[in-house]
Amino acid sequence: MELTARMIADMLGGVVDGDDNACVSTFAKIEEGVPFGLSFLANPKYTHYIYDTKSSVVIVARDFVAERPVAATLIRVDNPYMAVTELMNRFNDMTDKHPVGIEQPCHVGEGSVVEDNVYVGAFAYIGKNVRLGKGVKIYPQTYIGDNSVIDDNTVIYAGVKIYHDTVVGKGCIVHSGCVIGADGFGFAPLPDGSYRKIPQTGNVIIGDDVEIGANTTIDRATMGSTVISSGTKLDNLIQIAHNVNVGSNTVMAAQVGVAGSAHIGDNCVFAGQVGVAGHIKVGNRVTVGAQSGVPNNVDDGSTLMGYPALPGNSFARQAALLRRLPDLFERVNKIEKKQDK
Amino acid sequence: MELTARMIADMLGGVVDGDDNACVSTFAKIEEGVPFGLSFLANPKYTHYIYDTKSSVVIVARDFVAERPVAATLIRVDNPYMAVTELMNRFNDMTDKHPVGIEQPCHVGEGSVVEDNVYVGAFAYIGKNVRLGKGVKIYPQTYIGDNSVIDDNTVIYAGVKIYHDTVVGKGCIVHSGCVIGADGFGFAPLPDGSYRKIPQTGNVIIGDDVEIGANTTIDRATMGSTVISSGTKLDNLIQIAHNVNVGSNTVMAAQVGVAGSAHIGDNCVFAGQVGVAGHIKVGNRVTVGAQSGVPNNVDDGSTLMGYPALPGNSFARQAALLRRLPDLFERVNKIEKKQDK
Amino acid sequence: MELTARMIADMLGGVVDGDDNACVSTFAKIEEGVPFGLSFLANPKYTHYIYDTKSSVVIVARDFVAERPVAATLIRVDNPYMAVTELMNRFNDMTDKHPVGIEQPCHVGEGSVVEDNVYVGAFAYIGKNVRLGKGVKIYPQTYIGDNSVIDDNTVIYAGVKIYHDTVVGKGCIVHSGCVIGADGFGFAPLPDGSYRKIPQTGNVIIGDDVEIGANTTIDRATMGSTVISSGTKLDNLIQIAHNVNVGSNTVMAAQVGVAGSAHIGDNCVFAGQVGVAGHIKVGNRVTVGAQSGVPNNVDDGSTLMGYPALPGNSFARQAALLRRLPDLFERVNKIEKKQDK
Repeated sequence: MELTARMIADMLGGVVDGDDNACVSTFAKIEEGVPFGLSFLANPKYTHYIYDTKSSVVIVARDFVAERPVAATLIRVDNPYMAVTELMNRFNDMTDKHPVGIEQPCHVGEGSVVEDNVYVGAFAYIGKNVRLGKGVKIYPQTYIGDNSVIDDNTVIYAGVKIYHDTVVGKGCIVHSGCVIGADGFGFAPLPDGSYRKIPQTGNVIIGDDVEIGANTTIDRATMGSTVISSGTKLDNLIQIAHNVNVGSNTVMAAQVGVAGSAHIGDNCVFAGQVGVAGHIKVGNRVTVGAQSGVPNNVDDGSTLMGYPALPGNSFARQAALLRRLPDLFERVNKIEKKQDK
Repeated sequence: MELTARMIADMLGGVVDGDDNACVSTFAKIEEGVPFGLSFLANPKYTHYIYDTKSSVVIVARDFVAERPVAATLIRVDNPYMAVTELMNRFNDMTDKHPVGIEQPCHVGEGSVVEDNVYVGAFAYIGKNVRLGKGVKIYPQTYIGDNSVIDDNTVIYAGVKIYHDTVVGKGCIVHSGCVIGADGFGFAPLPDGSYRKIPQTGNVIIGDDVEIGANTTIDRATMGSTVISSGTKLDNLIQIAHNVNVGSNTVMAAQVGVAGSAHIGDNCVFAGQVGVAGHIKVGNRVTVGAQSGVPNNVDDGSTLMGYPALPGNSFARQAALLRRLPDLFERVNKIEKKQDK
Repeated sequence: MELTARMIADMLGGVVDGDDNACVSTFAKIEEGVPFGLSFLANPKYTHYIYDTKSSVVIVARDFVAERPVAATLIRVDNPYMAVTELMNRFNDMTDKHPVGIEQPCHVGEGSVVEDNVYVGAFAYIGKNVRLGKGVKIYPQTYIGDNSVIDDNTVIYAGVKIYHDTVVGKGCIVHSGCVIGADGFGFAPLPDGSYRKIPQTGNVIIGDDVEIGANTTIDRATMGSTVISSGTKLDNLIQIAHNVNVGSNTVMAAQVGVAGSAHIGDNCVFAGQVGVAGHIKVGNRVTVGAQSGVPNNVDDGSTLMGYPALPGNSFARQAALLRRLPDLFERVNKIEKKQDK
């Protein structure tokens, strides 16, 4: 797949500054440029790389002024970051076609409905009464339990395990090793110290345009549904416990854990390894720093950091004071000596 | 599957307060009640929901006194929480039958023994000399390595990977994506900075009535056995390293990590994302708060919290003092000024 | 497989002290000795076990002096720990043969090349234009995406998922449930609060002699490659984000998370549950304590601990001062009272 600088500029509403016919066939970071590579410059910290990059074409801001000669052909656009995202999506659409058809051997249970343009890979296991909507892609070795629905144009990568009664919306992407709908962790303690399993009779409902990372686990509800709302993006190795409700367009980085029955709002951003306690309510537009532990309800728009989590500025202040703690002990020693004189 | 209020009350030794013939076909939380739903009221904080719930039947304590009219039929029992757990188990037994039989294609290696009433799903791989006890359920795409034993009535969900020589007891439940018996993480450093693998020649032994969550990993021992004792419940994404020994009826929430050769006692409760150092001994009935790091031996009956973990009350006190740290610096400033006058 | 004390001593250049013909057939920890077991004594803390161990043979240091009679036959060597590692490797080579051949059913896509001495287990899925080098072992239910290369003598255990265009070097070991090459977590925020996926067009490159633990995830690069260099060992449930670069002979314990575009040096040692921020540079020979969070660049040879991570000795000092915080508040109270008199 080759494109010229002229073709790209036309797609993006940009202007070519250099050779209209400069060809590119791959994307490359500006600092790791390669011949026939297309790079972009969005972060000013990387500006110095433009003078030596081996990439053939670089997308830059309209007002970029080179201080030295640049070998690469430039394409000037309003927003280089969005332009390259747009371009990568178009490129991807052109090159990265998912397969279509039913590979054998696979297992499709009775009562299941497979709509048009679907791919079911070899060794996939589709239970009974499952619906695979139009354009759904089920990669090899995937398991879809009875009565589940995978709605139009959703892609389920190899080896995903989806338990019975799960609903996955349209246009979702679920990565390998993800487990959706396993039993929530519910046990009633008995007088002899042992535990009795509380059956997990609910299910999991995933909205539209959700992406779920590799080896992430989302448990089914004890009663009712565990819900991941539309537009939310979960990274790898995340734990979502039973009866959790995650709002729309919320983003969680890898290894976050959300305990049972917590409600997380819309448009939140959680950094990696955050923990959220059970049965709490986290508002909308909440940002939580890496490795923080959130023990209580959180208001809309908050920024939290630390363990237990504090408002971001309190955390920074506390961390600064902690660094001054040795000095504080020293000062108190001196004060005491002076007082004792 | 439909049950009347009368049938349920008879099962539970309860008393119907309302319509004996009120029908239910599903469980629902009291705050998310649905027609034909069965709810329960155990936590007084939820009492206000009972006046508006759409559920047809609600299980309440014998001494519950309604302050306003309640539309739902009530069933009065001694302990609503245990009663509903009991009922969910009975309901589950009635409705949630695991399959029986050997689906094709699957692979069963030579010398393997499959007892009565077993299910082996399609694309499952059973190695050589494996024993699958009575009523064992092996869901699709599961791998059971050579010489392993899966004892009676254990359920292994889709895609579990169990390495050779593993022993899993009776009545266990192992959720999708769980990996049991992979090599422990053991390497001998060589003078040139590289590492030589130490073969992991031991195995994993799991007791009876153990439940293991999705994508949890339990490594085989270097020598001897990694042991999870009977009645213990592990949530999702937990790491149990080589030669760890976990006692009976211990409960670990998601994303806990236990390092090599640690011994954990009976009846412990670990919250999510806890870390336990290697080669230490944690006693019986130890409770550890979320995200805590346990670096040293712990006495029976302790409650720990924090990083590094402190006794729970010390942690709370420390957290309170940390919040007062800005004030303390201020006070020391004032003292110094006064002294300097 | 049985060996005599004499045979073992000859292999290791050691001296038999006891019965040349004492037989062993398994390894056992000295404190868990069994008849026909071979144990070793390297850590002086375990010396007292040698007098009662049931193992038939124990490897000890040349200068070991028994203070009481020892029933076991001893083999005296220069370095018992390295000797037993060596021996376990030899034993392993003799007993633990991987299978050879192509089991059916499996799927091998067009254009794929399978070299000599390869094993492909049942239900494995090899995409198009894949190369499996000499002696490669692909266990059942594994997925290898199009255009990937698995180089000579690498072992991929059951159920591993490797996305397209991945390169895995020679002599690697990849454990079950590991996902290599899933999409990095990249999204461009749109004005309406939703996110647009940034296609992940790069790949993952793994060097030689790398071992990767169960359920670990390594994401493909946005552009270019995510790289794990030769000799590095990753434990279970680790997250390596897109465009991360990990150096040679670096060791990471379970549940570590490394955020996008971080560069980690050679010969580092990360304990369990460590988090590393994105876009930072961690030098060579850096040691990071368990559960620490590394927010910034780190110099070669540093030792870090804590959240946010401090140099190891500062962390120990801070932890000590924190324990004295209640006392400090008390002292400041007294000073104030005295001052106010």
